[in-house]
Amino acid sequence: MPNAIGTLYTLTTFGESHGAAIGGIVDGMPSGIDIDLDFIQNELNRRRPGQSKITTDRKETDEVELLSGVFEGKSTGTPIGFIVRNKNQQTKDYDDIRNLFRPSHADYTYYKKYGIRDYRGGGRASARITLARVVAGALAKLVLRKHNISIQAYTSQVGNIAVDKDYRKYDLSQAENNAVRCPDEAKAKEMESLIAEVKSEGDTIGGVITCVVKGCPVGLGEPEFGKLHALLGAAMLSINAAKGFEYGEGFDGSTWRGSQQNDSFATTSENENDDIAIRTNHSGGIQGGISNGEDIYFRVAFKPVATLLMEQKTVDIAGNEQTIDPRGRHDPCVLPRAVPIVESMAAMTILDALLVYNSKRM
Amino acid sequence: MPNAIGTLYTLTTFGESHGAAIGGIVDGMPSGIDIDLDFIQNELNRRRPGQSKITTDRKETDEVELLSGVFEGKSTGTPIGFIVRNKNQQTKDYDDIRNLFRPSHADYTYYKKYGIRDYRGGGRASARITLARVVAGALAKLVLRKHNISIQAYTSQVGNIAVDKDYRKYDLSQAENNAVRCPDEAKAKEMESLIAEVKSEGDTIGGVITCVVKGCPVGLGEPEFGKLHALLGAAMLSINAAKGFEYGEGFDGSTWRGSQQNDSFATTSENENDDIAIRTNHSGGIQGGISNGEDIYFRVAFKPVATLLMEQKTVDIAGNEQTIDPRGRHDPCVLPRAVPIVESMAAMTILDALLVYNSKRM
Amino acid sequence: MPNAIGTLYTLTTFGESHGAAIGGIVDGMPSGIDIDLDFIQNELNRRRPGQSKITTDRKETDEVELLSGVFEGKSTGTPIGFIVRNKNQQTKDYDDIRNLFRPSHADYTYYKKYGIRDYRGGGRASARITLARVVAGALAKLVLRKHNISIQAYTSQVGNIAVDKDYRKYDLSQAENNAVRCPDEAKAKEMESLIAEVKSEGDTIGGVITCVVKGCPVGLGEPEFGKLHALLGAAMLSINAAKGFEYGEGFDGSTWRGSQQNDSFATTSENENDDIAIRTNHSGGIQGGISNGEDIYFRVAFKPVATLLMEQKTVDIAGNEQTIDPRGRHDPCVLPRAVPIVESMAAMTILDALLVYNSKRM
Amino acid sequence: MPNAIGTLYTLTTFGESHGAAIGGIVDGMPSGIDIDLDFIQNELNRRRPGQSKITTDRKETDEVELLSGVFEGKSTGTPIGFIVRNKNQQTKDYDDIRNLFRPSHADYTYYKKYGIRDYRGGGRASARITLARVVAGALAKLVLRKHNISIQAYTSQVGNIAVDKDYRKYDLSQAENNAVRCPDEAKAKEMESLIAEVKSEGDTIGGVITCVVKGCPVGLGEPEFGKLHALLGAAMLSINAAKGFEYGEGFDGSTWRGSQQNDSFATTSENENDDIAIRTNHSGGIQGGISNGEDIYFRVAFKPVATLLMEQKTVDIAGNEQTIDPRGRHDPCVLPRAVPIVESMAAMTILDALLVYNSKRM
Repeated sequence: MPNAIGTLYTLTTFGESHGAAIGGIVDGMPSGIDIDLDFIQNELNRRRPGQSKITTDRKETDEVELLSGVFEGKSTGTPIGFIVRNKNQQTKDYDDIRNLFRPSHADYTYYKKYGIRDYRGGGRASARITLARVVAGALAKLVLRKHNISIQAYTSQVGNIAVDKDYRKYDLSQAENNAVRCPDEAKAKEMESLIAEVKSEGDTIGGVITCVVKGCPVGLGEPEFGKLHALLGAAMLSINAAKGFEYGEGFDGSTWRGSQQNDSFATTSENENDDIAIRTNHSGGIQGGISNGEDIYFRVAFKPVATLLMEQKTVDIAGNEQTIDPRGRHDPCVLPRAVPIVESMAAMTILDALLVYNSKRM
Repeated sequence: MPNAIGTLYTLTTFGESHGAAIGGIVDGMPSGIDIDLDFIQNELNRRRPGQSKITTDRKETDEVELLSGVFEGKSTGTPIGFIVRNKNQQTKDYDDIRNLFRPSHADYTYYKKYGIRDYRGGGRASARITLARVVAGALAKLVLRKHNISIQAYTSQVGNIAVDKDYRKYDLSQAENNAVRCPDEAKAKEMESLIAEVKSEGDTIGGVITCVVKGCPVGLGEPEFGKLHALLGAAMLSINAAKGFEYGEGFDGSTWRGSQQNDSFATTSENENDDIAIRTNHSGGIQGGISNGEDIYFRVAFKPVATLLMEQKTVDIAGNEQTIDPRGRHDPCVLPRAVPIVESMAAMTILDALLVYNSKRM
Repeated sequence: MPNAIGTLYTLTTFGESHGAAIGGIVDGMPSGIDIDLDFIQNELNRRRPGQSKITTDRKETDEVELLSGVFEGKSTGTPIGFIVRNKNQQTKDYDDIRNLFRPSHADYTYYKKYGIRDYRGGGRASARITLARVVAGALAKLVLRKHNISIQAYTSQVGNIAVDKDYRKYDLSQAENNAVRCPDEAKAKEMESLIAEVKSEGDTIGGVITCVVKGCPVGLGEPEFGKLHALLGAAMLSINAAKGFEYGEGFDGSTWRGSQQNDSFATTSENENDDIAIRTNHSGGIQGGISNGEDIYFRVAFKPVATLLMEQKTVDIAGNEQTIDPRGRHDPCVLPRAVPIVESMAAMTILDALLVYNSKRM
Repeated sequence: MPNAIGTLYTLTTFGESHGAAIGGIVDGMPSGIDIDLDFIQNELNRRRPGQSKITTDRKETDEVELLSGVFEGKSTGTPIGFIVRNKNQQTKDYDDIRNLFRPSHADYTYYKKYGIRDYRGGGRASARITLARVVAGALAKLVLRKHNISIQAYTSQVGNIAVDKDYRKYDLSQAENNAVRCPDEAKAKEMESLIAEVKSEGDTIGGVITCVVKGCPVGLGEPEFGKLHALLGAAMLSINAAKGFEYGEGFDGSTWRGSQQNDSFATTSENENDDIAIRTNHSGGIQGGISNGEDIYFRVAFKPVATLLMEQKTVDIAGNEQTIDPRGRHDPCVLPRAVPIVESMAAMTILDALLVYNSKRM
């Protein structure tokens, strides 16, 4: 099921950018959870385009309707089906690209794979589809909250502007105070300037999101192919425009020596919880694929959005050269809006691992 | 099934470092494939420790026995079960670490997760387990070969020494000519010197492996969670000591602008196959999660091996501080041996995607 | 994913009897199939209550809306999301059974499992949910039709009245000509009389549906746990009120000797297609779990519907004895309406097996 | 993965009748379980041919070797790989049927599906493969025992000779006291006579096995496609020669009226456990697909074994008529040996459902 993810907490999605609706089914929601609709809608709003002057101009007011699995305000344990209606289904908006393959979009690969193409705004490959993930992620967060597990992502890099401190040095809640969702106020300003500049040129820019999961018990994740970071990596890499994933010291750590990288333990007498702990955390909260009780942190790289507000050369279905004119919906930097998507994928993955872990606590 | 991977070409594995045997089941091997046992054994030998002076001293002569699914030299289409016997099952070798958690190993997390611990050389979390992947990868390569799909990985970085050219600039077959498996002869020498130095200090060093897949048709991979690079990423991140994955321009590309990163098309008249092609390939052969017919390339980061030949502080099960003495089997750099493992995971993933793709060609 | 079925052609469903909507996602629909909406709606109408005087009085006009995966009248190969709105969501209709467990319904087991209960008309356990299966089955039929595979089910028994001939002796298309969906006109009349009698008593009656699949190639189904009849059995047993499944000679065949039951072959010279064929077909079209090219036939037993139009003793949540009053929606015999559901589950299972089979035709 | 079953407690198998070995991997065994090797071997012995004069003459001494997942006598929570070596791999024994399709075996369907055929004694389709299920079932029983869940199967019918009482009227432990594994001593004698007669004629005979699961908590099984009886049905139907499955009143119950079939509740004051109970149990311990706390009981129909000790007409690969001579290994009635297989499949299914159920007890 290529459009589904998870083992015990699962999401299956459907929908295209300009179809009737986008939606999904969450199968595996525990019962008895208070379903806070305002929270879910607020999470969706965090993903919505048009929140600030640095994001896309496309106005989307995405209202989610939960169609099942909730009764008298609580989850029933049965599947939660949900839809978000698409307001804009104007096919003619896309008439001029009907026979063109836009560079670095999925137009060409989908056409060759399926022999048919929904040319309306990217169809199934549109980033608009990610709203289904945010709904499922919000539901997962409601469960994790009860287990004191929190998830916080932020923009740590836009183009060449990167935060220069470790996540522990920031008050991550500050990330929501600026349009770019970066907890470093000075860097946020620089990032915003860069995005404004890129936008004025009709261009786009990539970046990196960092995500931190706090409060996981020791033991999430499974041997071999079910390693927690492999599941997190798969979840993150499935997000539109994601090009890389690393956890703990990641690519940087590959230049280190073992004697630097190896994490040291805190003895029970040193650790306030009177339990063993990992003093340093170069591992990123996961050892042997299994959570070790420390913060889980990882980074996701995003390429610049492929839709430009400038002329581009391309080919048509017949393979002849064509020119694509600059077009309306332009999102110079997807990073800020990708923050809640990264959190959502993390929330789903962690909850799923928690349920699998729980199945053996007999 | 945390110890299984794949949809239609699947591998399930079992075994511990010092148990009776390590093995697996390949379910989904197409029938009628000539099973070249020498090729499979040779692939296993590429993974084996003790191949050169820069790898681990542990002598492993891993002989694989195929127990089923092959008849009169050809695959029958039914599951291929296989085992590799462990020669060394001496439990007493590990008596002194019986109650210790080695730093940055999976000792602590496994113990807390399962309430029990196989302390013999890492148990299930040992890198020795990866030999099952190499067998399944070799079988997948035999199928891909018939479809003219080739997979080649190489060591592109050890510590701070990295090749400085693009994979297209190298004759990748040269990678097998040196102990470090790097196609750049000069860099290979530098890497070997670094590894020798690290080894002499009893330390270890990380690095990066680059992998290139050539010959994929357009259309492998599925929408949303079945994106080809997400499957590749999950497969790579499941390898022991892997800390990061990126494809195409990866993390670097997140600093680019869209106008630089967007791939341009070659028209049918420009392309020798008389078909559309992607002229540049910043995307790494995958667009919208689906292969575009160009080379697929990606990089995997590995941390330094956690086992050091030096004294280390740690804790025991009771949480008291202890010292781990330097011990025998020391692999200063796992990169060379990880090359065939990366290739194997890629081969399995690509074949699986090819079968899924094929299912809809009706 | 307990609410999903299939490997490559999959259905995931959501919804409760009296929630906002019932729906599902078909993931795996081949692309380029003409989506005949009238056909789909007609299949839904076959399942709808209130079609004749012998079925439930509950009026349901179930209109399906396909929300995705179809473009310009053809399937795109991406997921087809669909919903059917519930017209009746009057919670107060069920106020009097709010704290009662109805005998042989899922009220008690759901309450104990989930700690919460959607008491409105059976909630998730309602037979109304099956309409999602009929939509997915209709889509599968559209694909199978192109491969000349046909599926026909009929009511072969109601209470003690059973057809006395083999399916080969009937014109199965006649089954749609009477309210009970039995191709034997005389038996159909008897069945209708029995149902009318049972209905007048406020009681219900069970029965058996026979299903025949024609036109399957040799080779569908997989070894061991993927045997075609095991997949068919699981699909059929998942239908509400199903209590048994048998294929070929089934339970009766267990009284036979091997020399009677063993199917004989027709030689190529005897067989009109100039190929080997199975002369008798006691096996029911499947041998060793794999289709043999002959008709696949099987039978599904249904218990009488649990909702009676008569007083019944029961208990409340506190475990005290209570009486349930006769209530409105009464379906004396679910068999006629279950016919399209059986066909739908068969169509999904056969298409799924066909895709898996196809994946290895390289 | 057609050769795998289960969600959290899973078995994947490999092997052919005359290959090097048969085996499997249990992925999902809870940790800390005492692994009683004698018990496992004893379960295997119950399945072994040649136990008595009424079963096959083929001598098999199946010794299982657990290769992983067990340390110091306890399960570690990691996969348990196991193999049973085949003693007889004499290919030449089967030279004369090399090009023949035996009637009602899987010879023809496998050959057409895979284009290749392992003609040695049925290859992958041989009933010998079921020993892997018995190992996995024995391991599951060791876990269920700790939860006071017991599983007991018995032969309830051979040919036309059937026990005439309900399972509650028998001491099921008596089933192991006779060769046919029937708890009704008089019927057992009749069955044995019938089998002896059938054997003397070189023929075979089918029958029915009844299975009872006691001690399940309320709540096992999941909505829609994960219904407990659907999972049990799929598991049973995957056993070689199984042709039908029914639970509770099954096919018989389809002739009943709802007023007879509906189960009545026992109030808390009536029930010794001071909880609600189901007084009658026509439902067979499952309502709405979820266990209700009562005994789960079901029946599995088996056809007569296809291998006869008499001359049979058949065709060869070229489609010409041929005669198969009477051959050695003759099992006149597979029922007694199928009893432990039915129990094994039940044990795996129930444990799997218990783990899924457990995952949500947070």
